[in-house]
Amino acid sequence: MPSEPERDRIEVVLVSPRNPLNIGAAARAMANFGFASLTVVAPYEAHWREAKSAVGASDLLESAKRVERLADAVADCTLVVGTGSLEHRKPEQPVIPLPELAPRLREETARGNRVALVFGSEKRGLTQDDLAHCHILAVIPTDPQQPSMNLGQAVAVCLYEIASRINPTVVPVADREAVGNEVGQGSAAASVNEADPAAPASTRDLELLAGVVEETMLAANYSPPAMRKANRHDLDLLLRRLALTSRDAVRILGLFRRILWQLKHESNRT
Amino acid sequence: MPSEPERDRIEVVLVSPRNPLNIGAAARAMANFGFASLTVVAPYEAHWREAKSAVGASDLLESAKRVERLADAVADCTLVVGTGSLEHRKPEQPVIPLPELAPRLREETARGNRVALVFGSEKRGLTQDDLAHCHILAVIPTDPQQPSMNLGQAVAVCLYEIASRINPTVVPVADREAVGNEVGQGSAAASVNEADPAAPASTRDLELLAGVVEETMLAANYSPPAMRKANRHDLDLLLRRLALTSRDAVRILGLFRRILWQLKHESNRT
Repeated sequence: MPSEPERDRIEVVLVSPRNPLNIGAAARAMANFGFASLTVVAPYEAHWREAKSAVGASDLLESAKRVERLADAVADCTLVVGTGSLEHRKPEQPVIPLPELAPRLREETARGNRVALVFGSEKRGLTQDDLAHCHILAVIPTDPQQPSMNLGQAVAVCLYEIASRINPTVVPVADREAVGNEVGQGSAAASVNEADPAAPASTRDLELLAGVVEETMLAANYSPPAMRKANRHDLDLLLRRLALTSRDAVRILGLFRRILWQLKHESNRT
Repeated sequence: MPSEPERDRIEVVLVSPRNPLNIGAAARAMANFGFASLTVVAPYEAHWREAKSAVGASDLLESAKRVERLADAVADCTLVVGTGSLEHRKPEQPVIPLPELAPRLREETARGNRVALVFGSEKRGLTQDDLAHCHILAVIPTDPQQPSMNLGQAVAVCLYEIASRINPTVVPVADREAVGNEVGQGSAAASVNEADPAAPASTRDLELLAGVVEETMLAANYSPPAMRKANRHDLDLLLRRLALTSRDAVRILGLFRRILWQLKHESNRT
């Protein structure tokens, strides 16, 4: 069996899912469509335990990662795709209809990069904070009268769309694992970017950069403290929109570190 | 919603569903994708009552038809499409992959004919008897290791496929933008291109920005004076590659002006 880089490089991320049945349903849809890497962000503890211990819980669910912050879940990814229907507050990033998503993902994974598909919680979908980590928003074209989908169904629809358009031949997960590929374990992606500075900056790069720019803004008294959160949000969106390469991120980081050092150094001398 | 003959002529038929949650999920997916006509064949009585009386059960579920035989459910239809994954015994009718179904349905409904999409029970899928009523079998391309889908998810995937290919729901752009745009905190977007802050930054904008960033680099002792020309060159290239909008340029300029002022101010105080 040929290995399938496209699907192996796509991570499914559930943010604060509430219903154990939905977590199980998401895992099942992943298995149905040949995706293997699941991360759950800040799940409700009891529901998470229940989902994992459910009769028939899949290996996939057993090996799912659990993190506390969305930034950690997508740290290795160069393209983070928020999902939803357009009941959302105004999206601030590019919106593409789900039927047009597959070519965009293929383009990214073909370069050896990792991609995340992010699903919000059942109640609220993706929050503004969640959306700040997303480069683009893929919208499921639902009826405006009833836009809100069940989480398990939304995951199934998105993965079907991608699986059936990215590479229509589904390859059994078992066969892929025989190749000796612990799917989705961070380290691989980090080295990709180091190897190719022209590759897109990863979420980890952007988080690091945003943190230093934010600190610089504070050190330079750029705006009142009350604006800090809004500024950081705008900054997160801006950095993702700019499509920085890994090298760009490193260079801009270097400049801001220097500026920050200078600002603090000068302050100390006074 | 405009009337939509294609979707109005498509019936969703569930054969002997067992799980009330799945019946509810099927109805929800129908509402999500703009389908209205549901028939349930020989449901398990208690589960059917439970599904219909569930809190939040939709009007669609309320008005669902209930019949005892699949033949009755599809009596008006000229094309009956069985659905499933290929765990089936060898089908005796033509099999088409789900991604190729929409054109076939459109062809039929365009003639004014009615079409049925038939889903089997959770346990067994469609039986040989059920299949005998189907003209074609639409197969969801699932992983051979895990072919069997949850009923609610299978319905969602099929209806998404049909809805998004038979007559894509247009996402109203106006709705997205009408909500307003918090990016660009007020005063920042003051000068350059007031007509359209989302327009690409002009060369004038970029020159101005590059000048201030360069001055900041010097003030922060970012690199030796000998590197100044090379740094400026790289900066010019970077700013053009980033495809900044007019608003971006103004905002970044504002940040660097502030930083520069602070650097000089602090220096003067020492």
